[in-house]
Amino acid sequence: MKTIVVINGPNMNLLGRREPEKYGAATLAAISEALAREAAQLGARCEFFQSNAEGELVTALQEAGGADGVILNAAAYTHYSVAIRDAIAAIPAPVVEVHMSNVYAREEFRHHSLLAPVCRGVIAGFGAGSYSLALRALLG
Amino acid sequence: MKTIVVINGPNMNLLGRREPEKYGAATLAAISEALAREAAQLGARCEFFQSNAEGELVTALQEAGGADGVILNAAAYTHYSVAIRDAIAAIPAPVVEVHMSNVYAREEFRHHSLLAPVCRGVIAGFGAGSYSLALRALLG
Amino acid sequence: MKTIVVINGPNMNLLGRREPEKYGAATLAAISEALAREAAQLGARCEFFQSNAEGELVTALQEAGGADGVILNAAAYTHYSVAIRDAIAAIPAPVVEVHMSNVYAREEFRHHSLLAPVCRGVIAGFGAGSYSLALRALLG
Amino acid sequence: MKTIVVINGPNMNLLGRREPEKYGAATLAAISEALAREAAQLGARCEFFQSNAEGELVTALQEAGGADGVILNAAAYTHYSVAIRDAIAAIPAPVVEVHMSNVYAREEFRHHSLLAPVCRGVIAGFGAGSYSLALRALLG
Amino acid sequence: MKTIVVINGPNMNLLGRREPEKYGAATLAAISEALAREAAQLGARCEFFQSNAEGELVTALQEAGGADGVILNAAAYTHYSVAIRDAIAAIPAPVVEVHMSNVYAREEFRHHSLLAPVCRGVIAGFGAGSYSLALRALLG
Amino acid sequence: MKTIVVINGPNMNLLGRREPEKYGAATLAAISEALAREAAQLGARCEFFQSNAEGELVTALQEAGGADGVILNAAAYTHYSVAIRDAIAAIPAPVVEVHMSNVYAREEFRHHSLLAPVCRGVIAGFGAGSYSLALRALLG
Amino acid sequence: MKTIVVINGPNMNLLGRREPEKYGAATLAAISEALAREAAQLGARCEFFQSNAEGELVTALQEAGGADGVILNAAAYTHYSVAIRDAIAAIPAPVVEVHMSNVYAREEFRHHSLLAPVCRGVIAGFGAGSYSLALRALLG
Amino acid sequence: MKTIVVINGPNMNLLGRREPEKYGAATLAAISEALAREAAQLGARCEFFQSNAEGELVTALQEAGGADGVILNAAAYTHYSVAIRDAIAAIPAPVVEVHMSNVYAREEFRHHSLLAPVCRGVIAGFGAGSYSLALRALLG
Amino acid sequence: MKTIVVINGPNMNLLGRREPEKYGAATLAAISEALAREAAQLGARCEFFQSNAEGELVTALQEAGGADGVILNAAAYTHYSVAIRDAIAAIPAPVVEVHMSNVYAREEFRHHSLLAPVCRGVIAGFGAGSYSLALRALLG
Amino acid sequence: MKTIVVINGPNMNLLGRREPEKYGAATLAAISEALAREAAQLGARCEFFQSNAEGELVTALQEAGGADGVILNAAAYTHYSVAIRDAIAAIPAPVVEVHMSNVYAREEFRHHSLLAPVCRGVIAGFGAGSYSLALRALLG
Amino acid sequence: MKTIVVINGPNMNLLGRREPEKYGAATLAAISEALAREAAQLGARCEFFQSNAEGELVTALQEAGGADGVILNAAAYTHYSVAIRDAIAAIPAPVVEVHMSNVYAREEFRHHSLLAPVCRGVIAGFGAGSYSLALRALLG
Amino acid sequence: MKTIVVINGPNMNLLGRREPEKYGAATLAAISEALAREAAQLGARCEFFQSNAEGELVTALQEAGGADGVILNAAAYTHYSVAIRDAIAAIPAPVVEVHMSNVYAREEFRHHSLLAPVCRGVIAGFGAGSYSLALRALLG
Repeated sequence: MKTIVVINGPNMNLLGRREPEKYGAATLAAISEALAREAAQLGARCEFFQSNAEGELVTALQEAGGADGVILNAAAYTHYSVAIRDAIAAIPAPVVEVHMSNVYAREEFRHHSLLAPVCRGVIAGFGAGSYSLALRALLG
Repeated sequence: MKTIVVINGPNMNLLGRREPEKYGAATLAAISEALAREAAQLGARCEFFQSNAEGELVTALQEAGGADGVILNAAAYTHYSVAIRDAIAAIPAPVVEVHMSNVYAREEFRHHSLLAPVCRGVIAGFGAGSYSLALRALLG
Repeated sequence: MKTIVVINGPNMNLLGRREPEKYGAATLAAISEALAREAAQLGARCEFFQSNAEGELVTALQEAGGADGVILNAAAYTHYSVAIRDAIAAIPAPVVEVHMSNVYAREEFRHHSLLAPVCRGVIAGFGAGSYSLALRALLG
Repeated sequence: MKTIVVINGPNMNLLGRREPEKYGAATLAAISEALAREAAQLGARCEFFQSNAEGELVTALQEAGGADGVILNAAAYTHYSVAIRDAIAAIPAPVVEVHMSNVYAREEFRHHSLLAPVCRGVIAGFGAGSYSLALRALLG
Repeated sequence: MKTIVVINGPNMNLLGRREPEKYGAATLAAISEALAREAAQLGARCEFFQSNAEGELVTALQEAGGADGVILNAAAYTHYSVAIRDAIAAIPAPVVEVHMSNVYAREEFRHHSLLAPVCRGVIAGFGAGSYSLALRALLG
Repeated sequence: MKTIVVINGPNMNLLGRREPEKYGAATLAAISEALAREAAQLGARCEFFQSNAEGELVTALQEAGGADGVILNAAAYTHYSVAIRDAIAAIPAPVVEVHMSNVYAREEFRHHSLLAPVCRGVIAGFGAGSYSLALRALLG
Repeated sequence: MKTIVVINGPNMNLLGRREPEKYGAATLAAISEALAREAAQLGARCEFFQSNAEGELVTALQEAGGADGVILNAAAYTHYSVAIRDAIAAIPAPVVEVHMSNVYAREEFRHHSLLAPVCRGVIAGFGAGSYSLALRALLG
Repeated sequence: MKTIVVINGPNMNLLGRREPEKYGAATLAAISEALAREAAQLGARCEFFQSNAEGELVTALQEAGGADGVILNAAAYTHYSVAIRDAIAAIPAPVVEVHMSNVYAREEFRHHSLLAPVCRGVIAGFGAGSYSLALRALLG
Repeated sequence: MKTIVVINGPNMNLLGRREPEKYGAATLAAISEALAREAAQLGARCEFFQSNAEGELVTALQEAGGADGVILNAAAYTHYSVAIRDAIAAIPAPVVEVHMSNVYAREEFRHHSLLAPVCRGVIAGFGAGSYSLALRALLG
Repeated sequence: MKTIVVINGPNMNLLGRREPEKYGAATLAAISEALAREAAQLGARCEFFQSNAEGELVTALQEAGGADGVILNAAAYTHYSVAIRDAIAAIPAPVVEVHMSNVYAREEFRHHSLLAPVCRGVIAGFGAGSYSLALRALLG
Repeated sequence: MKTIVVINGPNMNLLGRREPEKYGAATLAAISEALAREAAQLGARCEFFQSNAEGELVTALQEAGGADGVILNAAAYTHYSVAIRDAIAAIPAPVVEVHMSNVYAREEFRHHSLLAPVCRGVIAGFGAGSYSLALRALLG
Repeated sequence: MKTIVVINGPNMNLLGRREPEKYGAATLAAISEALAREAAQLGARCEFFQSNAEGELVTALQEAGGADGVILNAAAYTHYSVAIRDAIAAIPAPVVEVHMSNVYAREEFRHHSLLAPVCRGVIAGFGAGSYSLALRALLG
């Protein structure tokens, strides 16, 4: 049974409360549960981690190195964390960068990802669906 | 029955011959057929268009305005075609930008998309799978 | 009797349908007819051309070289087409760059015109009136 | 009877003497008179103001706020006066930015206008005719 | 017998008429004929193609992929066509970028070539002689 | 008794009329009166000056050099007036830069102040309260 | 009774020891006590938090969301923390950005704040007084 | 007898008081008198003008157009006044740009002069001697 | 006996596993042990700290302030951590920035160090030897 | 008999030893001999000069001013030597810039030539053949 | 008797031959003789040095360190020689940077001097007169 | 016995005289002697070369190609000499870039090294100790 680790970055714990017109009304817990069910249907299982701290995300990535894939929504850190980039590059597991919103339609500084060059691929703009698509990309 | 229009840009007609280590050995025809079958399973149908000419891609987008969704791999034009951007913004159909390769891991000038800000979302890096994920994003 | 060639670029064929709050509800055909009538009153005649394709706009400019003036709304190509710029510089007819919207009040990349330095002048922001003013500028 | 205020900026008082090959041999007085006559024929009247001082142009714009339109040739200040930009934005009258020369064919720093984004539109390159076209744009 | 394909871009069809002080008085037909004769003397043959359309140049390059060499004067497209760059990179034939004028002595935006990095080499500044030198470079 | 000079720049005389949703409905006179009262309560007195002219603001700063403090809302000039910067640096009185709106939440060119590096400090975003806070900063 | 949360970022715990000529000799504890007394006089109470860790500052902001106001000295993080910016934007409480030193008079990279655009306002340059002014701004 | 007009810009009226370690202790009046004496010895006469206002400097330059030379210390306006640049270019008199301090050893924004390209030459760094050298340059 | 504190940043805990062709096969523990032995031979002792978290590195630097020297390999944080820079500047101990790889031969964004300007010096490119050289630099 | 001077810049004396996969195995002497023979066949003669020193290359260009043409491979100096540029501009002989490698396919800083704007033309990418083509360009 | 060393850089030895419309018809020898005579009248003597080589100019500056002043026309090296800048900063003699032409009216890259920040002052635009003015500046 | 070549660039011959507060009071000769002694103790020998001329440094590097290592303090040339960079890349000997001062704490233009990417490593900031550390790095 394959294991997919789902790592969420800063302020993702506010999902459902924070700017719902941009991210929808579902909480991170609800989204995670649905994703876990979808993974189960596909014969895989998900592990979830969320932190507001860059260093903890680095550590989480290191610990996910043996998984079959990582779904990473690094949120704000996407745009400046060389530390997270180095962690992605250092582990064997393929990492898919996801964003719920279409980051390219937001502020200029959100158009550039430091992480994307060392990820397997990028999926952005489909709300909670971004996670679901990433799951299929990693399991497909 | 929903209709998804799949539009491919310049040099995509060389797929299978051009840099196969980057794009795989499958031809565009083979990829399109597989996608059409997947759409059929999901109760939808695909229409396909490919051109090396920016103006013809603009026209194709205009004509796809009434579809239920557009999957657009504008290839090289992604990075400088304001004309295609304007066409996307002018039509009601949601457009998903796709790339087979992880464009963020290639030359600097391929890291920026003029189209993404007016698309629904972006999917990049999963080979032929990028089309398949976009299909699900539009039908899901 | 003087001849003025009116050349419209990509997506201008959508006028009346595309973002009417920005460009008004009149179609390109309606605007062209009104302009032709105005030209007739001023003792001149208009020829009209529209294309989504950069290369066809280049060719149209080459063929309009002997006219008494060209009114050019190159739309999206205004901002990156060196090919159209070279065509303008290569023909003897004076060319007036027009825009229906005030392009300087829109996205940053629309503030710069590659064509303006080789045109006679620029008129922007007056809706269909921009064409009418250009007509008078060329005939006056 | 509509009132159009015509405001000219620094060094425009030298018209006819300064670089006549670029601006023609007519003085500002002569151009203003001709414009007043043209306005009269169109059932409107013009008021004229010229100053070399940025602050006086700001004040003149504030005082022209109740007019039916303003024709503004801010000359050199076009390219760096945030104060004039704020005055334009603060008054209800529509303002048309005009230039006698084609500023886009001159030095790089003249290609960018701080004022255009808050004006109704821009007309440049038609000598004294630029004022005349702006008059029609405001009265048409 | 070797085959060299000679591809000319936008506005090159105006040669002899357009700015003759920059490009000389010879037409493209005359230059092509002379080049064909020179090729014949060197035991090779030339095929010629000209288009104002970026997409057609892409297609022409794809079709020239099996030739022994391509001489490409992409003219204006040299400076912004990622599509042509991708076509050059996708074909096995060596491509030599040529320019009749010394592009480095002209406007700033003509100093940079998007195509040169994927070409065999560059020859610029020798009028019709640039084609002749490219021919020898490919046959030598 | 301490003297605080309050200097307001271009278009501040429109307060109450200009974009009230951004600056509130109070006029500059009303704000000044309230500030004078607050100063009196704190045992100080205020002198007020407003001008649309950069040069007059320079002179006003020079003349305020002997005061116990200057509250300066240079408005538009904040972003490009080296002359006002030099005047601030040349006088012994401490100068506090104030803005009623949060300039960092507006257009990009308003995010940078040429004056701040030579001021005592900066207060922005509190409407008329910005003046009041500056008064306390200077008297505290 | 209103609650104001005061959040201090990295190295602020060194106050009194670190570069006292720039920040004064008072410790953070002393400044906090004085501020608490001032708040009490104004009928409010303060809660204090300091951390060197970006993620903990994000969490502290999230937890302060229900307060009547936040005084935030993010210190070094002011200039690059998108995570803290997102936290500010995500909570309902108004946030005032403060700095003890005049950051605009220091190194270039300290002139730009990523946080200011989503704060209520900014106060910089008044030493411990900056906190006091922010308190009045939030309670006034 | 030749006439040299000496024009001084903003804050030059503070000479002797403002940062004497940078500009010396002599007042502008004292420097002007000494220069007038030196001119008399060389058989010429000087006229002097100082203003803090950009517009008045523009007018003064226009009025000095018939002189045998202009010595211009535009001070802060050197770095951003297109209006003064245009006035220099519009008058027949040769203009020498002078600075008392070595502007190239000060802040970055003082290294660039908008005026120098249209002046006869530049002299900077010799205190009051800069005026004297400019006088000789114009009379020599 | 002198004390040297050795602080390692994010992902340095992966040494020996992460990209061994770049950093060698030795683990951080092995390198630290060897360094401790070398220090002992030189009559000094080393303390070691590693963290993936920026805030913990800030705190570690603060706590190392009384040491005789700090060897800091901030890894990814080298390039963007103003917080760590401020900590270095705030402590009396001299800090030597070290890198095992030659960072100047890697990605562009690794060529610039925010920390170097406030360090004693920089040593890069000698593998584990970089630590050893830094030790001698601090003890020599 | 025409004289062509061939000038080679820094490190070209290492040809054959330095990175032979980039420049081929032939020494500069061998290439020069072959070129001299080719010139002789074309009824001309070559003079050769090589130096690692910028100043000697300047002098060599000055001394070659009376030749019928100069072939210049300035190597590294191509990208920053204003002194060599000035020497080229100062002499009457036409200069052809050559490079053995395709400099546009190498590091970014090698894509820009300071010399090309004042040369007759540029030939790059054909190994030793670049010299041969330049010879024909000058003699043709 | 004071000694002034006059140092001229690359291509200055061509004076009188090179672009006489820009630098006049006088040779460097003639200009130097005239300057020596002028110095003699002022009770000083000149020593002259010219070289095309950056390193020799560095050495010449080092050797002129004990003179009463240096007049330096570094020509092309003005714009990029850090080595010459360091030599100027390293010697006690005051150095005046001179240019015969108005460098600010020429190519963009000539507008910036690396040397000016460490010189006493700058004199540009007065032909041979620039040397004469520099002499007086150093002796005055 | 290993041979280490020590190459010093422009103005290093002034050591001990030039800005001793930055480089110490020791002359280059004294530093070299001490280094030679240290090398002898380590069973190696040093050869020394100093020049102000870029070209001679290029030649010295070429001639040092067979040594066991090169210690290079290119001083000012570090920041712009592509010629020296090419020489380093062309020779087999490992090169260590050294600086006595911490160049990252000096002017902005000294923060970037053109040489570092092709060197083995970089050591900066330890005065004469930088050479000593480099020696150990090469011999260690």
